[in-house]
Amino acid sequence: MSANGDLNTRVSDSSVRRLSDYHRILEDLEHQGADVVSSARLAALAGTNPAQIRKDLSYFGSFGKRGSGYRVAELRGRILEILGLTRRWKVVLAGAGNLGQALCAYKQFTRYGFDIVAVFDNDPAKFGKLCEGIPISALDTCEHIIEATGAELAIIATPAASAQAVAERLVKAGIRGFLNFAPRQVDTGAVTAVRHVNITVELEWLSFLLCNNGGRVS
Amino acid sequence: MSANGDLNTRVSDSSVRRLSDYHRILEDLEHQGADVVSSARLAALAGTNPAQIRKDLSYFGSFGKRGSGYRVAELRGRILEILGLTRRWKVVLAGAGNLGQALCAYKQFTRYGFDIVAVFDNDPAKFGKLCEGIPISALDTCEHIIEATGAELAIIATPAASAQAVAERLVKAGIRGFLNFAPRQVDTGAVTAVRHVNITVELEWLSFLLCNNGGRVS
Repeated sequence: MSANGDLNTRVSDSSVRRLSDYHRILEDLEHQGADVVSSARLAALAGTNPAQIRKDLSYFGSFGKRGSGYRVAELRGRILEILGLTRRWKVVLAGAGNLGQALCAYKQFTRYGFDIVAVFDNDPAKFGKLCEGIPISALDTCEHIIEATGAELAIIATPAASAQAVAERLVKAGIRGFLNFAPRQVDTGAVTAVRHVNITVELEWLSFLLCNNGGRVS
Repeated sequence: MSANGDLNTRVSDSSVRRLSDYHRILEDLEHQGADVVSSARLAALAGTNPAQIRKDLSYFGSFGKRGSGYRVAELRGRILEILGLTRRWKVVLAGAGNLGQALCAYKQFTRYGFDIVAVFDNDPAKFGKLCEGIPISALDTCEHIIEATGAELAIIATPAASAQAVAERLVKAGIRGFLNFAPRQVDTGAVTAVRHVNITVELEWLSFLLCNNGGRVS
């Protein structure tokens, strides 16, 4: 099921990231009262070029008129639709350690349409304690809570050793998309989506660049 | 200056990520007492194929013998060298809010060679308080502290509005690589490296996939 017609061409990882960037830039422009933005200006703000913007948008239909730029509010609304952000998403958080608690308090999630509705942990000492106002529940109760809340996304912030088992349990309970912060790949099967964020690997990238490339990135 | 000879071919983002994956897998295999791993087995563990492994490694010289697999300890050591992880890196953290404090407590950093040696903030109410044993310092003192500690990397966990100014100040103080968690791109110039981690954008990816692709990812 597609909200955007047939996506015949595979959209690249970097195109979707840029759509998120365009969205934030258009949001700023709208707050500043801009009605129209030239493709050159939008490209400069996003650190790309007008041809790339046209290509990123071309997967999803026709936007703007050559020479007259993009209508800010219209393009922003269209990108929100493409990204699936015209609705709000309910998210559960698994793992109420340091990182989990910080993610629970992360205000950008709410701002962009993601509401954490439940927090799970395996440690009985944490059950009932509050994480940003949400009581921490036993992972053993996740099926019930996920059904009751209608949550579809999960953030995994558990230790590496338990990440796979937690993910499998959440899939069975109905979760369809995972943002995994555990330093271990998790496999959740073909009908779910997973994004891995390994913070240490990002630092290793910097280390690699500084050792191999004089830090120069293009 | 390259620690690995001439890097004529541009190494892709995903190759470097996979090197980090291979490293973690080889580390597990070494702990399990394995001397040799077949390229098929290493590929299966990393969710890729033997040809991809050969390609990822080919940028950095010749590894293993066709048909006899890779020597675990030797390949792991070589990947550590490639990633610049045979040394330890000193890291400063800018922004001692929720996310900054969680990152300060993140044990994986120390495990893989990254030591947070100083924490900066702009809020005088935080100065002198401890973040995982490290006293929070005024950003105004960063030049002195960065020189004294010899730190080369920085993690930015400030609000969006101050990220660019903080990054510029840290560049002037000698920082060469940035891991930016602020929800805003920062430009630190050509002689430094930046990795952006925008956690909300990762959730937007999930939203996009679930709306456009039935959640199916390949």
